Amino acid sequence: MNLSAVLQAPHQLVIEDRDTPRPGRHDVLVRVEAVGICGSDVHYYEHGRIGSYVVRAPMVIGHEAAGTIVAVGDGVDASRVGQRVALEPGVPDRTCEQCLAGRYNLCPNVVFFATPPVDGAIAQLVTIDAAFAHPAPEQLSPEQAAMAEPVSVGVWAARRARIAPGDRVLVTGAGPIGLLAAQVALAFGADSVTVTDVSDFRLKVARELGLRAQAATQELTGSFDVLLECSGAPAAWRSGLGALAPAARAVLVGMGADELPIDVPLVQGREITITGIFRYAGTYPTALSLIASGRVSTEAIITHRFPLAQAEDALTVGRREDRSLKAVVLPQQ
Amino acid sequence: MNLSAVLQAPHQLVIEDRDTPRPGRHDVLVRVEAVGICGSDVHYYEHGRIGSYVVRAPMVIGHEAAGTIVAVGDGVDASRVGQRVALEPGVPDRTCEQCLAGRYNLCPNVVFFATPPVDGAIAQLVTIDAAFAHPAPEQLSPEQAAMAEPVSVGVWAARRARIAPGDRVLVTGAGPIGLLAAQVALAFGADSVTVTDVSDFRLKVARELGLRAQAATQELTGSFDVLLECSGAPAAWRSGLGALAPAARAVLVGMGADELPIDVPLVQGREITITGIFRYAGTYPTALSLIASGRVSTEAIITHRFPLAQAEDALTVGRREDRSLKAVVLPQQ
Amino acid sequence: MNLSAVLQAPHQLVIEDRDTPRPGRHDVLVRVEAVGICGSDVHYYEHGRIGSYVVRAPMVIGHEAAGTIVAVGDGVDASRVGQRVALEPGVPDRTCEQCLAGRYNLCPNVVFFATPPVDGAIAQLVTIDAAFAHPAPEQLSPEQAAMAEPVSVGVWAARRARIAPGDRVLVTGAGPIGLLAAQVALAFGADSVTVTDVSDFRLKVARELGLRAQAATQELTGSFDVLLECSGAPAAWRSGLGALAPAARAVLVGMGADELPIDVPLVQGREITITGIFRYAGTYPTALSLIASGRVSTEAIITHRFPLAQAEDALTVGRREDRSLKAVVLPQQ
Amino acid sequence: MNLSAVLQAPHQLVIEDRDTPRPGRHDVLVRVEAVGICGSDVHYYEHGRIGSYVVRAPMVIGHEAAGTIVAVGDGVDASRVGQRVALEPGVPDRTCEQCLAGRYNLCPNVVFFATPPVDGAIAQLVTIDAAFAHPAPEQLSPEQAAMAEPVSVGVWAARRARIAPGDRVLVTGAGPIGLLAAQVALAFGADSVTVTDVSDFRLKVARELGLRAQAATQELTGSFDVLLECSGAPAAWRSGLGALAPAARAVLVGMGADELPIDVPLVQGREITITGIFRYAGTYPTALSLIASGRVSTEAIITHRFPLAQAEDALTVGRREDRSLKAVVLPQQ
Repeated sequence: MNLSAVLQAPHQLVIEDRDTPRPGRHDVLVRVEAVGICGSDVHYYEHGRIGSYVVRAPMVIGHEAAGTIVAVGDGVDASRVGQRVALEPGVPDRTCEQCLAGRYNLCPNVVFFATPPVDGAIAQLVTIDAAFAHPAPEQLSPEQAAMAEPVSVGVWAARRARIAPGDRVLVTGAGPIGLLAAQVALAFGADSVTVTDVSDFRLKVARELGLRAQAATQELTGSFDVLLECSGAPAAWRSGLGALAPAARAVLVGMGADELPIDVPLVQGREITITGIFRYAGTYPTALSLIASGRVSTEAIITHRFPLAQAEDALTVGRREDRSLKAVVLPQQ
Repeated sequence: MNLSAVLQAPHQLVIEDRDTPRPGRHDVLVRVEAVGICGSDVHYYEHGRIGSYVVRAPMVIGHEAAGTIVAVGDGVDASRVGQRVALEPGVPDRTCEQCLAGRYNLCPNVVFFATPPVDGAIAQLVTIDAAFAHPAPEQLSPEQAAMAEPVSVGVWAARRARIAPGDRVLVTGAGPIGLLAAQVALAFGADSVTVTDVSDFRLKVARELGLRAQAATQELTGSFDVLLECSGAPAAWRSGLGALAPAARAVLVGMGADELPIDVPLVQGREITITGIFRYAGTYPTALSLIASGRVSTEAIITHRFPLAQAEDALTVGRREDRSLKAVVLPQQ
Repeated sequence: MNLSAVLQAPHQLVIEDRDTPRPGRHDVLVRVEAVGICGSDVHYYEHGRIGSYVVRAPMVIGHEAAGTIVAVGDGVDASRVGQRVALEPGVPDRTCEQCLAGRYNLCPNVVFFATPPVDGAIAQLVTIDAAFAHPAPEQLSPEQAAMAEPVSVGVWAARRARIAPGDRVLVTGAGPIGLLAAQVALAFGADSVTVTDVSDFRLKVARELGLRAQAATQELTGSFDVLLECSGAPAAWRSGLGALAPAARAVLVGMGADELPIDVPLVQGREITITGIFRYAGTYPTALSLIASGRVSTEAIITHRFPLAQAEDALTVGRREDRSLKAVVLPQQ
Repeated sequence: MNLSAVLQAPHQLVIEDRDTPRPGRHDVLVRVEAVGICGSDVHYYEHGRIGSYVVRAPMVIGHEAAGTIVAVGDGVDASRVGQRVALEPGVPDRTCEQCLAGRYNLCPNVVFFATPPVDGAIAQLVTIDAAFAHPAPEQLSPEQAAMAEPVSVGVWAARRARIAPGDRVLVTGAGPIGLLAAQVALAFGADSVTVTDVSDFRLKVARELGLRAQAATQELTGSFDVLLECSGAPAAWRSGLGALAPAARAVLVGMGADELPIDVPLVQGREITITGIFRYAGTYPTALSLIASGRVSTEAIITHRFPLAQAEDALTVGRREDRSLKAVVLPQQ
């Protein structure tokens, strides 16, 4: 038996009993214990597609998963059975030019949970390549381990922005990604991290996490060395870019606007560097370490938990409740 | 006597006899022998301003200068008299945060030739801080040495883009800056350098310099690791960005459009890095070396030469003649 | 009156009344309130030289200084009078190739406190270039501000080693520099920092600072991504280098042995990068911020304090007492 | 039939008919047309081991190979049959931490031609993972394509040293690796490349390649930004290191001495960075492009060619003839 949350059409999520998967030679079979809901899951649920990725056949959703290894393929060390693991959702081909260059997040042949037509992880059991099932420190709960996925986005952004002591960081957008990325920025040693959002609730959470917080409508004062744009809102991008210091770095993390403007004299005159990021590579051990040491708290981010039978509620809670950030589905409950 | 080309108002350039300048303690006095005309000079001549920089009082123009040291201040090695030098036109304060960080091109207090209200270098004699009068290799003519300025822009762009063997480089815009930057890219080891422009004449010059060249209207084929945008044209930016490979770097070199768009899914999906550049820092010795060794040819770029008395013609030739690239004024003639 | 601690010959430190210095145009006059004693001060006191730097004339010693601005030169903002400042002891020429490249710590013409023949800072009053008198956050005591100097060494080492979350750091040598650098490494986000030393007292201090600590005689277990060698001891270097992971970075911080060996197959086989560091550049604001925020504690490091009259005791306490780390002289007491 | 050069014991190389290998699913079968002889091949021939790598069973030698694809596995594009390819000799596991970080050259599980117990490439036919059989530009001869291996060492060294215009490069040791690395340094844009060696013949070859050359016994004048140590000789290392400029980079390329000394005050005082390199990663396309464009000439390096039957002569010619650099075995002759 392998109950799974299957998206059959927009707004139709059903719990189906799928076949129990069998691990391939280099795979592990994982009993999934927690899966975070990401904006992309909600988007597939509501629209059946994200840009050119179209859900043409019923697809299990969810890609922020953690659980316990219950079986391994022939090529995997059998002592891993019983290990708590966080699942890195994209398994690249490891043969292409991008993979060999260490940029496996740009692999054109990646197989990624819940990116059509690949099934996702809201299921009782999934298989994954053993190298992408990362051992979680013992003290981590499954839902904390599952958060290694969105924390990885923050780690990747911080690495691309080369955040270090001395940096004043601005994070526009205090959704789950923004709040995690902001904490990661502190862990990278940023002197200060300021978060902006339109939601009072989110700004309150930010303050409780030790971050500076201000309403997005308020004018930015001071000057920043790094911008992590996590809102996808053109206004946030414009004002964030305008608040940057000479030689600052801006990272496009959030999705939303398909096109954003660059103020050319500003970007030239201050020699600002702008980078887009796509997923992450080599971040899981660091993300897990940040969570385990408490440098990144996931507790304030996870606002809702649902058993498998109520997976659909996990997808809709964000629209229904103002005071929501991250919902987690617990497939064993 | 110090005949100088003074911009008195838009479209009014007169040759005036200005006082002979006296070098300060750390300055050198230079007999100016060649000054290249840059688009910014033409812009001041035509409009009396560039953005917020307004010519409010008569100002000597020109900033791409070379000549011979004829006297030195007390704090300068007297043996430098007689030395051929290229003049780096911006002297920073060397005390501010940007200067101490090695980013003196971003110094807010820089004194830059022909940026109002600072006088420029189309004059028989100018003074400059000795550290910014760079010794030119013996074989260089004054006009070649003067080209160290626009070549420096190319060197700075190539450094910011980290061009090296293995890179396929696209240069959009085959004006003087584009053609020099393209040659610099080859000197940095680029596997191939493709130049685009709307002018057949410029494309022909590009081909003669060993560059690949194609009409800007033609669709770009293939994929590039580096984009040096030297046209300032939004269409060139869009098509150039779209032709970039994963992990590519784009540098905003040209001025023109005040705002340019970023295709967000493209910049994220390929993790493209975009950098604006402003002038240059620490490039002069390298620029002079590239010219002296023949790795960068300035001959095909300098299409017109004028004696001091005809300096105004040097500013207008670009509008009058299709087949012009760079005009040089020779203040001793 | 300007009582100053003058080294007249090895083992002869006298308190002399020197002329009150007058600030130059770009200088500030500082009432010195705390000066840390560094190993180099002790070395000059004991031997009258460090390598080729020989004390040929009486010289005021000390270079880790902080105090309050009491007067400024004509070219300095008068509102700075009254400001608490940490003094960056080396003022470079800002004209040479190294300075213009942002590497002012390598300036061959630097004027550095207490490097012969330049007088140092254990005096009631000193002058210094205004740009090198760094405003200290209000909450800092003079002795904390003075510690910006040794903390800067740690910041520079951490930057050169690019320490970030994910890194396991080994610091060999738990003297003042090692203990401060280790705390800086944590502030840069290191996952773990292990300190080794031969002194139980120093290891105890390390543990109290939240660092892992182990006896230098004990074998190193595990693998490290960064080595900060702060002991100057060949044995520590050898064992530290041998404990490094592939692609690790090693920084030579400590002075001691004039020659150290590299195990070539090891350095090649793991592609280890080794860097030597010399002082620091652009670190003071970050060092002050790290101290002010409590990320780096100087309290456990400063074990002894002396009034000016007992400055000599500050130089000798390290030899006399096992449980000493850093001595500070308070010139106003 | 698959005649192969098998090392049976030190000084015993025999030509054996081995089984024709069958390509695995992701492999190609290659008719080998040229194999360069490397110092490591000679070392195995003479000593039967290199450090801890011991030839315990008969082993085919050679790892600098090129040829033509004659068959492919099921998972490989069949249109590759007939393609001229250069064989990258080390196939990593692509699953370990090093591989996923883009450092596949440090993969602990790499399978490398002619590193015991793995057979090498001096054979009529070999199989290799398709991703490591790099298409060679059409104009390349097999022996030129085979040189992509030693050229890769130079590319990797140049990348690690970040060679670019403005750099003065010193290469100590003018053997095949030194002469190729020196040419690569020029292709990366080095302003000058100086090569040292004890052999007049090698220095003459260097000069013919457009490099500066001087006897290793002569004192180095001037100052260098990069040292590529390709001799393995302690004296060359010492004098090379001493000739470096502030902020210079030194790369340990050559093998020889097991231990080399660092002059600590020198490495600290100039902030020199020293890196060891091990093989290469991601260099083959660039190496092939450098050879194909003529930026790196292999002609002067290949001094001897042998048919398969005389493979043993290829291993001994270096000892027999002073004027030898690189020998190539042609397995189809």
